[in-house]
Amino acid sequence: MIDRIWRVPAPAGTLRRLLGSATAALVAVAAAGPATAAAVTREYWVGATPTTWNIVPNGVDAILGTRYGNETILPTVTYRRYTRGWKKLLRNAPARNVDSDRIPGPLLHARVGDRIVVHFKNFDTRFNRAHSMHFHGVSYKPSSDGAYLPGFSGRDAEVKPGQTWTYKLRAGPQSAGFWPYHDHSTSMHESLAGGMYGGLSIRGRRERAPDREFVVVLAPTGDLQTINGHAFVGNTPVFSARVGDLVQWDVMAIGSEHHTFHVHGHRWLEHGVPRDTQTVGPAESFRFRWREDATGTWFYHCHVEQHMERGMIGIYRVTR
Amino acid sequence: MIDRIWRVPAPAGTLRRLLGSATAALVAVAAAGPATAAAVTREYWVGATPTTWNIVPNGVDAILGTRYGNETILPTVTYRRYTRGWKKLLRNAPARNVDSDRIPGPLLHARVGDRIVVHFKNFDTRFNRAHSMHFHGVSYKPSSDGAYLPGFSGRDAEVKPGQTWTYKLRAGPQSAGFWPYHDHSTSMHESLAGGMYGGLSIRGRRERAPDREFVVVLAPTGDLQTINGHAFVGNTPVFSARVGDLVQWDVMAIGSEHHTFHVHGHRWLEHGVPRDTQTVGPAESFRFRWREDATGTWFYHCHVEQHMERGMIGIYRVTR
Amino acid sequence: MIDRIWRVPAPAGTLRRLLGSATAALVAVAAAGPATAAAVTREYWVGATPTTWNIVPNGVDAILGTRYGNETILPTVTYRRYTRGWKKLLRNAPARNVDSDRIPGPLLHARVGDRIVVHFKNFDTRFNRAHSMHFHGVSYKPSSDGAYLPGFSGRDAEVKPGQTWTYKLRAGPQSAGFWPYHDHSTSMHESLAGGMYGGLSIRGRRERAPDREFVVVLAPTGDLQTINGHAFVGNTPVFSARVGDLVQWDVMAIGSEHHTFHVHGHRWLEHGVPRDTQTVGPAESFRFRWREDATGTWFYHCHVEQHMERGMIGIYRVTR
Repeated sequence: MIDRIWRVPAPAGTLRRLLGSATAALVAVAAAGPATAAAVTREYWVGATPTTWNIVPNGVDAILGTRYGNETILPTVTYRRYTRGWKKLLRNAPARNVDSDRIPGPLLHARVGDRIVVHFKNFDTRFNRAHSMHFHGVSYKPSSDGAYLPGFSGRDAEVKPGQTWTYKLRAGPQSAGFWPYHDHSTSMHESLAGGMYGGLSIRGRRERAPDREFVVVLAPTGDLQTINGHAFVGNTPVFSARVGDLVQWDVMAIGSEHHTFHVHGHRWLEHGVPRDTQTVGPAESFRFRWREDATGTWFYHCHVEQHMERGMIGIYRVTR
Repeated sequence: MIDRIWRVPAPAGTLRRLLGSATAALVAVAAAGPATAAAVTREYWVGATPTTWNIVPNGVDAILGTRYGNETILPTVTYRRYTRGWKKLLRNAPARNVDSDRIPGPLLHARVGDRIVVHFKNFDTRFNRAHSMHFHGVSYKPSSDGAYLPGFSGRDAEVKPGQTWTYKLRAGPQSAGFWPYHDHSTSMHESLAGGMYGGLSIRGRRERAPDREFVVVLAPTGDLQTINGHAFVGNTPVFSARVGDLVQWDVMAIGSEHHTFHVHGHRWLEHGVPRDTQTVGPAESFRFRWREDATGTWFYHCHVEQHMERGMIGIYRVTR
Repeated sequence: MIDRIWRVPAPAGTLRRLLGSATAALVAVAAAGPATAAAVTREYWVGATPTTWNIVPNGVDAILGTRYGNETILPTVTYRRYTRGWKKLLRNAPARNVDSDRIPGPLLHARVGDRIVVHFKNFDTRFNRAHSMHFHGVSYKPSSDGAYLPGFSGRDAEVKPGQTWTYKLRAGPQSAGFWPYHDHSTSMHESLAGGMYGGLSIRGRRERAPDREFVVVLAPTGDLQTINGHAFVGNTPVFSARVGDLVQWDVMAIGSEHHTFHVHGHRWLEHGVPRDTQTVGPAESFRFRWREDATGTWFYHCHVEQHMERGMIGIYRVTR
């Protein structure tokens, strides 16, 4: 878990050593998903759960040297993964993005043709706010929309503390891709500022799982610009792959700003045209894949300069 | 006409009832355009005409409950449709978007291969400013460009109050799509802030007309974020369709900000890739179609959070 | 050289005469590149060289009439082209964009399959800062990445005044297109604000050279919005072509803002869909081509209104 490793302020000189150990752990992670091709119903148990989040756990911007203290600690509510019946709290990304624990929420996987059932419970005793889940990219009836519309919407859009709601979704032929989900209740704006969002990763019927899947959510948190809720190299996720891996990046943005996502030393295809920098605005999302062939310690970052300076930058390590 | 229906402040509890009656009227609208396939010359008579516009006619943000008063009333000049020779003022959208009366200007239809002749008269006795029309997406000679360039441009770019100009345009093979037009005279910036823009909808030579065509212009008006000049649910257009309809959305933006246009419960294809949220920057535009199959009362909105909060959200109703 | 011609403030009335002479010079420029098809190694010699740059050399916004004085003069460091061994300073665009002399840096040409070797020397005795070059769109080892990462990056990312570094790049199958390069050292943000960026233009293996190639870099400079470091018509580049020319536009942005690039009276294809306005965010880039057929004096500009008002607008002249 990266934010443990990094909790001690890291002077620039020790960054290499610390990253070294962090990466070794990540490389051991198995990333392949289930290989079943038959349409299934996938059930997820999600809670809106109070937590205390540190945007800069290691307390330093390693590039500019700026130090951060308690002002980066945020009491908030995020989406958490649970076992059936919300009996036991799970890590959001147990076998994949181990560094993405509470922000974003759990990555929900499905295939085109599947039904997805998301059991949601509001555990928000901290702010005592109603919450909801609104899903992009999938089909559903209005009662699973989760968006507050006075006079029209129902309990799906205002799940009060202690209450539950079950969202019933279907991944149709136009659902293949990576999509956001987020709170769309009356407390939407406070919730999104606090990290209450996540992603749906939907594969084509016969599309193979990637060897590595990296979720990148670009959003402001507090007054910093964050990737998965963290700011600055050493706090943001360290993604890792080996040469030969089929790597998939799932990129989305939340908030009020447009970003340009860039990865160093690599390119991907957008509609057949090579790219290494791509605009992503609020609630937009895209995914791309490549077969890894470039060893090195690379940056990935938002290329909007003021965002990069305010923390929207991370490290991608490729080894043999 | 929606802004009449909504002129009385609508407490959240009565939103359903009011929308119910508004929608019934909209469903009765016939939307199919002319079915001719031969290239023709299409003549339009447009005036720049003073008007008083209320950005929030019902005086309330139904979602957050905020009340608005006379500060949302704007004396302005907009594009209006006239009969031949500017004899009689017409509704901008007589048989289509009945709720889009003065902002945006008239939706100009053509097919690839057509000539489009726009007779423009400046009736601006309110501010006594020169105005013009500049068209995207079509071919024309510099004398129909309508953009002020000192030492080069002519009367097309500075049509003074009381004067007229005729813009001669051609819809070529690369003109199929939805495109903006707007003032590009010396008063461009004040005019655009006041709603002086509209759209050109150009079909392919053999492309059928949609059953429903919805024009969405995202732009700031006053200090609110508006759709077709209106802010907040109940003031912004209520678009309606029935299951089975071929629905077309024409989306553009004007001003200085980028937006992300989102429709709930639906997806479209952009270059063959499914989307439910798409960036649109100033003077960009796109159109998309779907065969309607999802009954419900849905939101469409800009997903930039600060824009959604400031009014850039509306309702789309689908019935059997 | 446009900025010489325009150094005398130009009252709006004389704009036509001045543009006339400027254009005549531009039309004489030969634009075709080398026609070799075999993969080669292309060597460039580039320096980071102090210069004094005037954002508004003619001292006037010809459209609004606002006058500018010494506040638009900027001491800065830019990328300059040199002969082998940095023996002699060259113009950045000797036979192509004669009006783009120091901002952007030299346009680096290559073909898919080529190796590109960029010899870089830091001549920055003005600010005494380290600098670097980071290239988009091409393949390279981490030692040619040029991005400062404490504990990982080497001399490629911190070329100190008086020092040199050689960047070794390869144009692979996914490198065809137009791409940015820029400083990515610790002084990146000051350098980019001062114009330290340029473009790579990479043609497909068998792709013919255009007859005209126009580089457009949208970026803030000082408190103005600039194209190739200049603001306002008469200062920004005057691009010229003749009917029948194969014209290529290379468009990129640098900084923290998104733009929408628009050309009057013309359209291009983006993924097969006609466009005349296209979003470009920081470090994004695209190129498009057309066979010229529309005589006239046209605007090209960013359609973000506040950018257009602050100078991001220029002239494109097409003659028979």
